[in-house]
Amino acid sequence: MKILVSNDDGIDSPGIYALSKALKEIGDVIVVAPLAEQSAVGHAITMQIPLRVTEYYKNNEFFGYAVDGTPADCIKMGIKNILKYQPDVVVSGINNGSNSAINIIYSGTVSAAREAAIMDVPSIAVSVASHKVDNYAFAGKVARNLTAEVVNKKLRPGTLLNVNIPNLPESEIKGILLTKQGKSKWDDIYEERIDPYGRKYYWLTGKMLPLDNTIEADQYAVMQNYVAVTPIHFDLTDYETFANMKSWNIENLFSLKENMFK
Amino acid sequence: MKILVSNDDGIDSPGIYALSKALKEIGDVIVVAPLAEQSAVGHAITMQIPLRVTEYYKNNEFFGYAVDGTPADCIKMGIKNILKYQPDVVVSGINNGSNSAINIIYSGTVSAAREAAIMDVPSIAVSVASHKVDNYAFAGKVARNLTAEVVNKKLRPGTLLNVNIPNLPESEIKGILLTKQGKSKWDDIYEERIDPYGRKYYWLTGKMLPLDNTIEADQYAVMQNYVAVTPIHFDLTDYETFANMKSWNIENLFSLKENMFK
Repeated sequence: MKILVSNDDGIDSPGIYALSKALKEIGDVIVVAPLAEQSAVGHAITMQIPLRVTEYYKNNEFFGYAVDGTPADCIKMGIKNILKYQPDVVVSGINNGSNSAINIIYSGTVSAAREAAIMDVPSIAVSVASHKVDNYAFAGKVARNLTAEVVNKKLRPGTLLNVNIPNLPESEIKGILLTKQGKSKWDDIYEERIDPYGRKYYWLTGKMLPLDNTIEADQYAVMQNYVAVTPIHFDLTDYETFANMKSWNIENLFSLKENMFK
Repeated sequence: MKILVSNDDGIDSPGIYALSKALKEIGDVIVVAPLAEQSAVGHAITMQIPLRVTEYYKNNEFFGYAVDGTPADCIKMGIKNILKYQPDVVVSGINNGSNSAINIIYSGTVSAAREAAIMDVPSIAVSVASHKVDNYAFAGKVARNLTAEVVNKKLRPGTLLNVNIPNLPESEIKGILLTKQGKSKWDDIYEERIDPYGRKYYWLTGKMLPLDNTIEADQYAVMQNYVAVTPIHFDLTDYETFANMKSWNIENLFSLKENMFK
């Protein structure tokens, strides 16, 4: 089994090292990851400037390929230019910090896995819900077992699994739940500061407000000490609204022949 | 009616100027747009570095606020820090180049509108399917009329309209259709070059392969000379797979009590 591994915290992060180690127990691991941290870059890809690839060593051993771009760049570059074949599965992580609820939209970790899904490769994104992860070993085991399960059971084309894990010892984890992207909102604050030259600048801060306290909501399941596994897809069509909007009759909204656009 | 306008081509692009002009016919327009081009940045937000805001003038008149960040940054900053109230609607565009099918995922134009939807503001993304737009006036009229319609008819929370317009004179447009995100794929190529110092670098190129030739697919409708209007949502949950995965019984996959994670 060929496993392509990436992340958004950068190739030198401890999370990708732990993930790579756990996955070597079940297959051949190829690491292609960002040279620098790429948190919150979403599904950005690099088209305005070129990319470079360098070999990256850890503890004097070849660890993988570093790309000076985004997580989605790493998957495209990894499959098209480094592997030059489709891997059996892509695993992204282990991310420091939750990628549940609305954070899925902003996440580079999830976007790497989503790029794989777009390229018809089954994939998993793995995050631990803390910016100070105490122990990557449990998350590594979850990633390893779910990876084997995904390759075995298969997902429909375009689907990936987004996995969020509480930052707790294994003994305190209550179990694993199938979940949905929970409803939530960021209460954003732009903190205003003055630079040494008297000019204003702004730092984005704030906190996430969970708006869905059912056990099927990913962020709530994690708060209740469960591992949350959410299947997501890159088809953004809102089918409910698609059905409802038929009554708008938009094709008649602007009668082109009568030049209603004036 | 208060209308917040943004884009991803940058505040100095002709598309946002045309959009702003068209929307002034139906409301008060406030422009908050990226200082520099931000194509293909997806839903990136800026958290690792601070942001600055500058007033931008066009033809010696105040045009709007330029933010040195991404389209999603502009919407957050525009609502939280510049307006300090919820606008009635957000309109993003007019983008040079199609944002249909899989391009929706990579688009900064769409992500600006999606950020508005996340913040509970109805929104529309508007793109013309050409990198050399001949005439923004027709797209401006479509944007203006659909904006009025969205504010009037309302969308469900979290939904935005993604609008793609053929690059044709109004007389050649066949009509307006309600569409879905069409299936498609990029055939990516990384073009290898050598820099003046002998080092390799790679440019991402390639072409989009449409995989859905039904008139309900956004990219196909545009190819057939229709304006395509696709409702999209930020809930990425794959409900079909969520239902199917119940048979996986993942809660039993790893019996935690028996320490199967070893």
